[in-house]
Amino acid sequence: MSKKVITISREFGIGGRTIAKMVAERLGYAFYDKALVERIAKESGYSEEFIERRGEDATSTSSFLFNLSRSGGGNYEGVSGVSDKLFVIQYNLIKNLPDEGPCVIVGRCSDYILKDCQDALHVFIYADTKFKADRIVRLYGERNDSPEKRLEEKDKKRKVYYKNYTGRIWGMSSNYDICLNSGKIGIENCADIIVKLAMI
Amino acid sequence: MSKKVITISREFGIGGRTIAKMVAERLGYAFYDKALVERIAKESGYSEEFIERRGEDATSTSSFLFNLSRSGGGNYEGVSGVSDKLFVIQYNLIKNLPDEGPCVIVGRCSDYILKDCQDALHVFIYADTKFKADRIVRLYGERNDSPEKRLEEKDKKRKVYYKNYTGRIWGMSSNYDICLNSGKIGIENCADIIVKLAMI
Repeated sequence: MSKKVITISREFGIGGRTIAKMVAERLGYAFYDKALVERIAKESGYSEEFIERRGEDATSTSSFLFNLSRSGGGNYEGVSGVSDKLFVIQYNLIKNLPDEGPCVIVGRCSDYILKDCQDALHVFIYADTKFKADRIVRLYGERNDSPEKRLEEKDKKRKVYYKNYTGRIWGMSSNYDICLNSGKIGIENCADIIVKLAMI
Repeated sequence: MSKKVITISREFGIGGRTIAKMVAERLGYAFYDKALVERIAKESGYSEEFIERRGEDATSTSSFLFNLSRSGGGNYEGVSGVSDKLFVIQYNLIKNLPDEGPCVIVGRCSDYILKDCQDALHVFIYADTKFKADRIVRLYGERNDSPEKRLEEKDKKRKVYYKNYTGRIWGMSSNYDICLNSGKIGIENCADIIVKLAMI
């Protein structure tokens, strides 16, 4: 298989960033999570904090796919709204990342943007609510009173964002090459499986 | 993890039976595919051929979940229709299979029926249409003129059946512990990953 590009889509709180970082380090691949935010910020002129907040959970209901199609996918013509403009920048950046060398990309519809890339392995990572709630309280210092609500809100936004910009259902297995429940399988084991598949 | 029960749900034509058989043989687990059909036939009085045809692709739109709930999940009271009766028999058989020893179970909503089984690993296997179409023409001697249509029909029936009897979306990653694209990952590699996860 020998995959030079690995996209890792993930629910909130399941250890996705940790797994992606482990995979990138073990394979010696570039790691695009925060680094992607920095590049989108530089390209767009918006702050990194703004990109973090708006880059993956816009709740726009505009017919963006139509706009993207009309604009040819690479420029701003016919595209209105901050979120849509950010998506075009993000789309073009991610589309060209494989040309820069092997890499691991976290989220941001990268599975969809690179769906035709022959060298890509597309991964989705998820977990049960209990595992996620325990983890965000323990690691992120989330308020202990309603972590489930916070998880639901965060994932709902990602789901809407993904649907809006790809037309696909977030978490549907057919969008990815492998889907892993990190709560059941374990974070280390998820990284092992992805590294092994990348090298086959 | 050490999983004593492995359920393998699968799209038509992706090598699911082959993978499940390899896993069962390598782990020394009982293999319930044809063997499950035989037991349902014996219990119900219907022929194996009838069970094969009706057991996994009923298109009933009755509110079976309501019926199942009303009947307590284990008897025929309030359950009408051949497909629903077959499902109750299937449900009770699968529910009790883990008590008989380690096993691999193919399809038949076993992921849903054993969703609360602590010792279970739930797997979904799928592939792109091209991989499946080539495979069914080559291996099953399906008509070469429209294998895609045959695949679509078969999987649509399984999808409706699953929705009808579980209330869940077939192929949605959250229903399973791991989902594998056998066309991309390879049949042998899928079996390797499942065996490894069962033994952890």
